[in-house]
Amino acid sequence: MARLREVGELEALRRLIRDRAAGPGVIVGPGDDAAVLRPTPGVDLVATTDALVAGRHYLAEWITPEELGARLAAANLSDLAAMAATPRWALLETGVGADHEVDDLLALERGLERALGEAGASIVGGNLSATAGPEWLTLTLLGEVARGRAWTRRGARPGDLIAVSGAPGRAGAGLALARRLGAAARDPALEPLLDAWLRPRAHVALALSLAASGAVTAAIDISDGLAGDLRQLCEASGVGAEIDAALGEGDAPLARAATALGVGAFELFAGPSDDYELLLAVDPARRAAGELAAEAVGERLAFIGRFAAAPGVIEAVSGDGARRPIEASGFDHFARR
Amino acid sequence: MARLREVGELEALRRLIRDRAAGPGVIVGPGDDAAVLRPTPGVDLVATTDALVAGRHYLAEWITPEELGARLAAANLSDLAAMAATPRWALLETGVGADHEVDDLLALERGLERALGEAGASIVGGNLSATAGPEWLTLTLLGEVARGRAWTRRGARPGDLIAVSGAPGRAGAGLALARRLGAAARDPALEPLLDAWLRPRAHVALALSLAASGAVTAAIDISDGLAGDLRQLCEASGVGAEIDAALGEGDAPLARAATALGVGAFELFAGPSDDYELLLAVDPARRAAGELAAEAVGERLAFIGRFAAAPGVIEAVSGDGARRPIEASGFDHFARR
Repeated sequence: MARLREVGELEALRRLIRDRAAGPGVIVGPGDDAAVLRPTPGVDLVATTDALVAGRHYLAEWITPEELGARLAAANLSDLAAMAATPRWALLETGVGADHEVDDLLALERGLERALGEAGASIVGGNLSATAGPEWLTLTLLGEVARGRAWTRRGARPGDLIAVSGAPGRAGAGLALARRLGAAARDPALEPLLDAWLRPRAHVALALSLAASGAVTAAIDISDGLAGDLRQLCEASGVGAEIDAALGEGDAPLARAATALGVGAFELFAGPSDDYELLLAVDPARRAAGELAAEAVGERLAFIGRFAAAPGVIEAVSGDGARRPIEASGFDHFARR
Repeated sequence: MARLREVGELEALRRLIRDRAAGPGVIVGPGDDAAVLRPTPGVDLVATTDALVAGRHYLAEWITPEELGARLAAANLSDLAAMAATPRWALLETGVGADHEVDDLLALERGLERALGEAGASIVGGNLSATAGPEWLTLTLLGEVARGRAWTRRGARPGDLIAVSGAPGRAGAGLALARRLGAAARDPALEPLLDAWLRPRAHVALALSLAASGAVTAAIDISDGLAGDLRQLCEASGVGAEIDAALGEGDAPLARAATALGVGAFELFAGPSDDYELLLAVDPARRAAGELAAEAVGERLAFIGRFAAAPGVIEAVSGDGARRPIEASGFDHFARR
């Protein structure tokens, strides 16, 4: 093992870009002043960037470097999925300490590269910075979408159905359990929650299949928590929403976490959580087409409510018809905790 | 004035993207999961990313937020200039403390936006992270170049001339003076050096004019120091280089700095320095065309030597024909200092 301080910046960069196969559409890859890429003729380009900061977005003692790289990929892939874009090219920035093990950096890059590669994207450039403080990673991911066909947050209409992929809230529950229980959170009964937190997967194939179905009118990815991201989608679309007050109760691991944490399953389902699930507005006339498109890629959509006319009003509706407003906002990294 | 902790992440982001005019080719700008951009038909895309870390790449007590934003722009614009690309779209990531003044963040963004705007580019997305440690900024910049016409580091041939824009070494000298002399470095006689360090400008117009002249066979930007970046260009092209041993002596402010710092002017000229000047290989048969192209945009090229056949051998040649090898490598951020 060797540390960055011993190996030096140039040599570390050499090892990081060595043996890297140039991905499709890469004319000039890592190692020059910039990457040169050849877009597919006639497409729109979709660009996103997301960061992971040690101690804020991840806890280094809980995650391996490979998993961390894959998680950075998922955070960015999920943004492209929410635009119905096909991932293509990524640029990585890292701020790490001089005592960081070069092998750990290589492992992180492998995890990143593998997760990107499964979605069809490759690393085309990057940068390595030194920091004396908490380490950070930022990725910029570029994708492509047929001209004018990107999903946005703006298209939801009153009456459209609210659908989610996967199991929202599990990632936030995993983090809360790790903080509360420490090593005891590694209980097999809680494993799906730790897994959602440490090894999230973006729903790229689902998004592309749904895009072809024409069922989706608006989309956002759940990176702050369902309630907060639903609020953002409602604000962008100028609509309100009604969701089922019993959400989360049907997810057995989440219900166990709720008991362990002394909160309601709904609060975990809808509260702060970086799940990288998709939250979608679905045209009710195309619900069946959407469900088929999800099944075609081995996924399932859960329909959890519908959009309503009153702008910004988000309510949970119980089986008996009782309504209560949803206050939850997204995760604020600058809030005192 | 209000701090991020008081204002919150969402509101700070709202202020950062408020009133921002969508730039050319921006279909969906900041505020969605990703930006949607429309490339010019038939071009290659050029993508770079660069970071500034507090205490490493800048000293917060020496630079205003506006200047810092402009400097981040220059670092990235310079990479695109070195590829002969036209800058178009940028994504900003910031890692800042919860006590950071929101107004300072807005000023940084203004400086960034203005510098990008002068080069024809706009901010299309970004992200705000909290950090308890040294603050950092990363920018990813996208540009366009006619298909297959990007400059690279690989095209220099023995006999090609070595040209540089501007006055290499001044930025590194400014930093060294600030560290050595403290406030006394604000001497008017040294102002051009502090200016080069704090307010660098990328040579985008020069690059585009030169690209049209066909005079350039390879290019790199000087972001680590002339000797280090010349070495990288030589390694990529499989050539060596001879440069004038008297370089730097003709630059009066640099010569004054050399005296103040007790080093040679050549060492400052060629040593570690993030000048964002262009280092170019020029076809000798097209030197005049290159000079005219530079004059057309109010710039001047200095011809400082020529590329040679022996791979990796870089020498300084004196007026009397004496040769000495150049050892200087670039700036290593992980080295002990």
